Amino acid sequence: MPSRSADDDPRLGDVSEGTILRAILSRTAPASHAILGPGDDAAVIATPSGSVVATTDTLVHGPDFRLAWSTGYDLGWKSAAVNLADVAAMGARPTALLVALAVPRDLRLSFVEQLADGFREACEALAPGCAVVGGDLTVSDVLTIAVTALGDLEGREPVTRAGARPGDVVAVAGELGHAAHGLAVLFGRFRDGGVPVPIDSDLLESGERAALSAQLRPAPPIGLGVMASVAAATAMMDISDGLALDAGRLAAASDVTLDLSRAALGEHPERALAGGEDHALLATFPSDVLPPGFRIIGAVRERGADGVLCDGLPVSSDGWDPYRDWDSTAG
Amino acid sequence: MPSRSADDDPRLGDVSEGTILRAILSRTAPASHAILGPGDDAAVIATPSGSVVATTDTLVHGPDFRLAWSTGYDLGWKSAAVNLADVAAMGARPTALLVALAVPRDLRLSFVEQLADGFREACEALAPGCAVVGGDLTVSDVLTIAVTALGDLEGREPVTRAGARPGDVVAVAGELGHAAHGLAVLFGRFRDGGVPVPIDSDLLESGERAALSAQLRPAPPIGLGVMASVAAATAMMDISDGLALDAGRLAAASDVTLDLSRAALGEHPERALAGGEDHALLATFPSDVLPPGFRIIGAVRERGADGVLCDGLPVSSDGWDPYRDWDSTAG
Repeated sequence: MPSRSADDDPRLGDVSEGTILRAILSRTAPASHAILGPGDDAAVIATPSGSVVATTDTLVHGPDFRLAWSTGYDLGWKSAAVNLADVAAMGARPTALLVALAVPRDLRLSFVEQLADGFREACEALAPGCAVVGGDLTVSDVLTIAVTALGDLEGREPVTRAGARPGDVVAVAGELGHAAHGLAVLFGRFRDGGVPVPIDSDLLESGERAALSAQLRPAPPIGLGVMASVAAATAMMDISDGLALDAGRLAAASDVTLDLSRAALGEHPERALAGGEDHALLATFPSDVLPPGFRIIGAVRERGADGVLCDGLPVSSDGWDPYRDWDSTAG
Repeated sequence: MPSRSADDDPRLGDVSEGTILRAILSRTAPASHAILGPGDDAAVIATPSGSVVATTDTLVHGPDFRLAWSTGYDLGWKSAAVNLADVAAMGARPTALLVALAVPRDLRLSFVEQLADGFREACEALAPGCAVVGGDLTVSDVLTIAVTALGDLEGREPVTRAGARPGDVVAVAGELGHAAHGLAVLFGRFRDGGVPVPIDSDLLESGERAALSAQLRPAPPIGLGVMASVAAATAMMDISDGLALDAGRLAAASDVTLDLSRAALGEHPERALAGGEDHALLATFPSDVLPPGFRIIGAVRERGADGVLCDGLPVSSDGWDPYRDWDSTAG
């Protein structure tokens, strides 16, 4: 990111809302489905196939990120990515984002510019054609980024969590446990750090770099959501709260048991089961189908006493619950 | 609202996310356009006319509301209403809301229940068929309600801010200045109040009650947005930051001057010009057209030195700018 003196980089409280909005909008790329983009009371997005997929997800300073660890660019990127993943998990193609920002007045203008750059580049990298089409800016003592993502099913049925059938295979696309590893690195090595951690820092081993990148700038396999749908996925969801917990949700919605194979969960199966924020795609497919990018991690069984098994044994499913797990005093 | 003992009404920090979500979802009505409602990664909303209108707006504790003045019901209602107004201002019919809540852990469960009731009843009253189809819940020290509203143009073109032409009439539907009056009543009479102000309190005169109602539970004329579009409105917008400021925005987008008539602005023209948060609809129409519910307040002229005149004289257009106008220490 460009270095800039404080004189050139006013605090948000010292400039007008119009200045901030212009800085953001000048960094917005056109969305290929936008009939009307930012600047009016609302945006208008084309939905030629007759429906729109819509989801919202919020990042809050404290429970969801720390400015000591994340740059504005990181936060824009991650806020886009986690919402794009929810659209992908329905089997849809993301078309547009709306971004509601509540920002403290002592933040610098460059922070908001980086945020806008992160949104734009995440869309370009993960979901080409999708872009920010609208938003809202307000002031708050707690930096809060609420994003709504829209998507198009292109005439396909949505892939819900409820369609898994005994005999299907359980598969994932994307990383498992890396984001949680990245969080552990941040807490372990940068707990008291006062500036964002450079992902390419020489202080990091390559495994740590990959983990930090997964935590700070996740790159979920957005395009594979459409591929899974085309390949007749019977159920699909975004893994945001850890595989064990989210697999339990899919199992409950489908009234089945998912029997996972520990050997398929990589070098750190416990981390893969418990870790949150991966935004990998969890899907079930008929046993004779597996689209590129997905790997089999288990099988769907008739519903038993437990929704999720690993090598036949029950899996505890403690995922991330912000009400239980976040302590504002400890951070 | 039902009274309930603290024992029956746990703090959010003492219950699970699932309990909170069930309390909210049990209060959600079906949206008539929803193909898939809450509970999966995303909702799916029918858009038979081939496009979707989308807007987002956020209410933050401090600059946008105080829990000392607003009940949960009030906040749900207002959060819905201000977003529905943006959809209406495009000439569209609201179809669905997505609600991202960031809530402190010391709030009571009943507060969230009231919030959900307010969302539902505002939709039922102002935009029948529209309802909450999805959302997100996270924890924050600052209560923040970010809403996205979707709408359907039913085959019509969107009514932007940019189409006003010299010779058109300027018209409004809805109240002007009442919400600002309500805010003045709150600051003047309830500045140090510790509980929400009952809108029907005997402490209030009837004018004050109407003003407080406009501030705390605004009822913008949502259905008139579609009527204005059908009646060939040339431009339209939601008046959220005061008539003078927003009329200046419409004038700039259309490259015209709006010449308002002070006599048409009611008993308190200064309040009508400056007051924010009315969420009335400002529209321009060909001079031979005026749909029911709209009243003429001026005429569109060729662009002059000033975007907004009142009785031929320039109007200062200081609206509400949260970066300039909100002081977190003074509240």
